[in-house]
Amino acid sequence: MSKRVAILLAEGFEEAEAVIVIDILQRLEVDVVTVACRPMRQVASYHGLNVTADHLLAEVHTTLFDAVVLPGGPQGTVNLAANPQVTDFIRQHDQAGKWICPLCSAAARVLGGNRLLRGRRYVCSGDLHQTVDDGVYVDAHVVEDGNLISGRGLGVAFDFAFYLAWRLTGKKEAINFQAEHIYYDSWRVPE
Amino acid sequence: MSKRVAILLAEGFEEAEAVIVIDILQRLEVDVVTVACRPMRQVASYHGLNVTADHLLAEVHTTLFDAVVLPGGPQGTVNLAANPQVTDFIRQHDQAGKWICPLCSAAARVLGGNRLLRGRRYVCSGDLHQTVDDGVYVDAHVVEDGNLISGRGLGVAFDFAFYLAWRLTGKKEAINFQAEHIYYDSWRVPE
Repeated sequence: MSKRVAILLAEGFEEAEAVIVIDILQRLEVDVVTVACRPMRQVASYHGLNVTADHLLAEVHTTLFDAVVLPGGPQGTVNLAANPQVTDFIRQHDQAGKWICPLCSAAARVLGGNRLLRGRRYVCSGDLHQTVDDGVYVDAHVVEDGNLISGRGLGVAFDFAFYLAWRLTGKKEAINFQAEHIYYDSWRVPE
Repeated sequence: MSKRVAILLAEGFEEAEAVIVIDILQRLEVDVVTVACRPMRQVASYHGLNVTADHLLAEVHTTLFDAVVLPGGPQGTVNLAANPQVTDFIRQHDQAGKWICPLCSAAARVLGGNRLLRGRRYVCSGDLHQTVDDGVYVDAHVVEDGNLISGRGLGVAFDFAFYLAWRLTGKKEAINFQAEHIYYDSWRVPE
């Protein structure tokens, strides 16, 4: 059965971070569901792209996905961090050992800001790690610790998406084929 | 005044190619307008993302933008190529010397397929160049010839977007700052 991933979209989400992950995972036959973390399915991105999500968070809040992806975006992660439905959803997945996958500011703001890092190693964008005291910041593009996979930011979103696809599916050849197929030269499955 | 760019979205457009360009250009203060090339503003992407465009093509077909961007996507470029409103819009911009910017399969299908390459050098994805006889295929990530800027595909969409931002604005320092800011290591403004 295909792996299923929920990607959480709040007003101001970083559109290219979200869409690169959606695109790469679906190219690798992972089923991605976009989830609106607000009372309606229409969500406006950081730079004003209007997207209609597949579901409201309220519609899927009792579903367990194989991974939860949290894109960045300055206001997007402030909105995710302030929403108790979002932190409950993440906490349920974390307790079940599902992949928790923040990108850019999401690790610091959404997880660190709600004491959901729980001592794990992570990466995030800029200096936001200085505000966090429940995780261990690592200076790398993509960091895995337990069931937490974090990515530094937009410019490594392909690396983050391919890494997650690899950990979800284990399909090394298909993933390397796809990275080559789209002409993305700077990432291959680790040896 | 800010430069203005139209990005043409048909059913099946490659979502990450489109959204990376929208994101990077707007980070560099270029005004990007999403244009639906169908009778309604809702457009579904290659992998099922539902986007509401800013305008219908019919609403902006007499406006001259500084650049027209054509994202890829297997069905997206078939749909763009088959739409006479789209080819008229591109032809008007080409005649006015505005930037024409196809990514992935768009150069071969939309321009080559409608004899709009007019002998210029270009790049596109895969073997599609073998079907084209009115342009000169070049094996490179991004190719500029006259007012034509083409990009090979999804994995070089950041390079393509930064290159276009540079040719539109000339703001070398701002562009290099932004590439570094988002942690995109593999592209800087050419010396």
